[in-house]
Amino acid sequence: MMKSESYITLPKGFKANGVSAGMKISDRANYNPEMPRNSYLDVGMVLSDTPCNVAGVYTKNLVKGHSLVRSIDIIESGNKVRGIIVNSKNANAAVGKVGIEDAEAVAAKAAELIDCRPSEILTASTGVIGTRLPVDKITSAIPELVSGLTSDAEGAHDSEFAMMTTDTVPKEVSATITLSEGHTITIAGQAKGSGMIHPNLATMIGIFTTDADIKAPLLKSMLKDAVKYTFNRVSVDGDTSVCDMVIVLANGESGVTIEEGSEDAFIFAEALRGLCEDIARMLASDGEGATKFVEVEVYGAKTEKDAYLIASSVAKSPLCKTAFFGMDANCGRILTAAGYSGADFDPEKIDIKLSGLLVYQDGIATDFDEEEADRLLHEHDIKVEIILKEGNCYDRMFTCDFSYKYVEINGSYRT
Amino acid sequence: MMKSESYITLPKGFKANGVSAGMKISDRANYNPEMPRNSYLDVGMVLSDTPCNVAGVYTKNLVKGHSLVRSIDIIESGNKVRGIIVNSKNANAAVGKVGIEDAEAVAAKAAELIDCRPSEILTASTGVIGTRLPVDKITSAIPELVSGLTSDAEGAHDSEFAMMTTDTVPKEVSATITLSEGHTITIAGQAKGSGMIHPNLATMIGIFTTDADIKAPLLKSMLKDAVKYTFNRVSVDGDTSVCDMVIVLANGESGVTIEEGSEDAFIFAEALRGLCEDIARMLASDGEGATKFVEVEVYGAKTEKDAYLIASSVAKSPLCKTAFFGMDANCGRILTAAGYSGADFDPEKIDIKLSGLLVYQDGIATDFDEEEADRLLHEHDIKVEIILKEGNCYDRMFTCDFSYKYVEINGSYRT
Repeated sequence: MMKSESYITLPKGFKANGVSAGMKISDRANYNPEMPRNSYLDVGMVLSDTPCNVAGVYTKNLVKGHSLVRSIDIIESGNKVRGIIVNSKNANAAVGKVGIEDAEAVAAKAAELIDCRPSEILTASTGVIGTRLPVDKITSAIPELVSGLTSDAEGAHDSEFAMMTTDTVPKEVSATITLSEGHTITIAGQAKGSGMIHPNLATMIGIFTTDADIKAPLLKSMLKDAVKYTFNRVSVDGDTSVCDMVIVLANGESGVTIEEGSEDAFIFAEALRGLCEDIARMLASDGEGATKFVEVEVYGAKTEKDAYLIASSVAKSPLCKTAFFGMDANCGRILTAAGYSGADFDPEKIDIKLSGLLVYQDGIATDFDEEEADRLLHEHDIKVEIILKEGNCYDRMFTCDFSYKYVEINGSYRT
Repeated sequence: MMKSESYITLPKGFKANGVSAGMKISDRANYNPEMPRNSYLDVGMVLSDTPCNVAGVYTKNLVKGHSLVRSIDIIESGNKVRGIIVNSKNANAAVGKVGIEDAEAVAAKAAELIDCRPSEILTASTGVIGTRLPVDKITSAIPELVSGLTSDAEGAHDSEFAMMTTDTVPKEVSATITLSEGHTITIAGQAKGSGMIHPNLATMIGIFTTDADIKAPLLKSMLKDAVKYTFNRVSVDGDTSVCDMVIVLANGESGVTIEEGSEDAFIFAEALRGLCEDIARMLASDGEGATKFVEVEVYGAKTEKDAYLIASSVAKSPLCKTAFFGMDANCGRILTAAGYSGADFDPEKIDIKLSGLLVYQDGIATDFDEEEADRLLHEHDIKVEIILKEGNCYDRMFTCDFSYKYVEINGSYRT
């Protein structure tokens, strides 16, 4: 990851842009010139010069937003696409049949100006549920959006800002990798996501681009593997949204083809997984109101499911998360969360480490150094290791603490 | 429920008391006389003049506190008991073998003064996990505790205050019921519980007394039924503690025997269930930092499990709970929580009502009156009804909102 230089249009043949349709500020005429220019962007686009193979993974929530449902239909058809248009402030969810029509109208307007079919433009929406998408506002902003598409960093950053909601920092990653025969290809990614985050998915919209040429089925299998232990291991608040999606657009503009089963496929998959992990960590660090990044690791579980249950239980526990916020070494809460997780283990064998400090041994609280614990808890990054000594299974979860700010943000999100 | 007159020693032949062993204030010598006298009580006792049949239900957490484990062994042996000694501030959990010995020492000291066997005195502890019980402090306070046992209201209230932790109000209930042949018996109950509350159990200690004569197996089956839709339907934060227990002590001092399968058994079971429900509502209302009481009801689910999953998912969702705190009619979050609950339903058939106001119909947000929603959300009691139209199963959950105060309380619990 090269954070300062990362943006979505680094792979060859991609352009992006972000504009304001006046949703983030209720009256665009009243726009305050002292406001950072990024903070009012609410419609973004990532577009390839040429058609792309595309793969996606989506929220498992039974309720799905209309813009997302439309995109799933397109992606799963196996047809190529040119890009994606994303809006924030409104989830376009739970409004009935007009929801699909609204997403269709947005895509159609963009397609008209780009000169492609509407079905080549994916749609994604994030924000408040149950309010109709302001289609007129968005379509009015699309000419500016499309005419400003650029491969420059600024357009890419603007497309990221346009999809952010309560995020406080942009999340952009990239990697240029050298394949077996000396060819190089580039992968880049950006994401939004801060609250309503829990597997599956990590409430988010994630867009990856690559100039490699990869067939859709291989792309899909690599994306699914990459997501499993990265985005699907982030919990901010245990809620799973209705609009989550992660897509990869592969336009082949590098001239390099990656075939299934090849060494290159392995290298690419590893790079994609690494970028997903980088973003997953950023998502947890930027969780709503977060002051801490917390990684929970479970070792020695009897089954994979047990390892997951415990990591997830600790990462979700409001009691553990408020203790991290308060920097209180109340490790009994970690033991408690493991105990009610539903996983099978012997509580008299469990060890727990807090950022390396052994706080429970064989199920008994150690006489650990409170000053040392206090020092470790004042670090931004906290690691919890839970060692069960039952078997060989491992899992982990990325999360954050639970602060006053989380309550503030979510007590008044709509207003 | 007759709140003002309810206390644990209303049934014939019970006494109670609560004293300070100096755990709630670190130095008893520095006790401030302006502090409410109840707030420093930390060891309580409920005792029957004669041996009681006893039944209990316990936390399902794999990790169990040592005082609790000792009590489970006694209760499940089927032997009669005289009463229970409870301490707050320390959970007597996860300290190894000495934990059982410490609980035994406390019970032995009380038994010596009462002149009964230690195994006739149950033990319960609640508070911080992983720190050894200050046995000397507690045993030093036991003479005062035992000599002050009384059937007066004051002793009963003190026994309740002694087991409270972050509770802000005592939870005491009672009912005098007339049975089939005109006999009357009394049931009373008290509980503590505020945080770390989620089925099973609703992190709590609950003690019920009755002067009816009921055999232990019948008492147990009535208690299990009573708990199922009451204490096991309370969620404050989704955490399940290691010390939860609810017991019923039946000493038979009324001279009235209740037989299995009789009409009286039905009447008694119904009364016990009603008292458990009253306390369950009090627990949710007094959830840590709560400013709202929220009842979530699910109608028309395909299976009982589906109904439970949805009620539980909404009641646990930090996003729903912060919206209740912010009095924001962000009902998309309720729909979202239903959608990721794991229950099977058609999102295009779901209706949602907020304190009677229809906010979603057939999965689509209604154009509800925001002012009316605002007025309803400013009430202390909020009801969420979710109507699935899939079948005939129902469930419900009692919960509260998620406030700044919850974070404050739990960010610094140990200190």
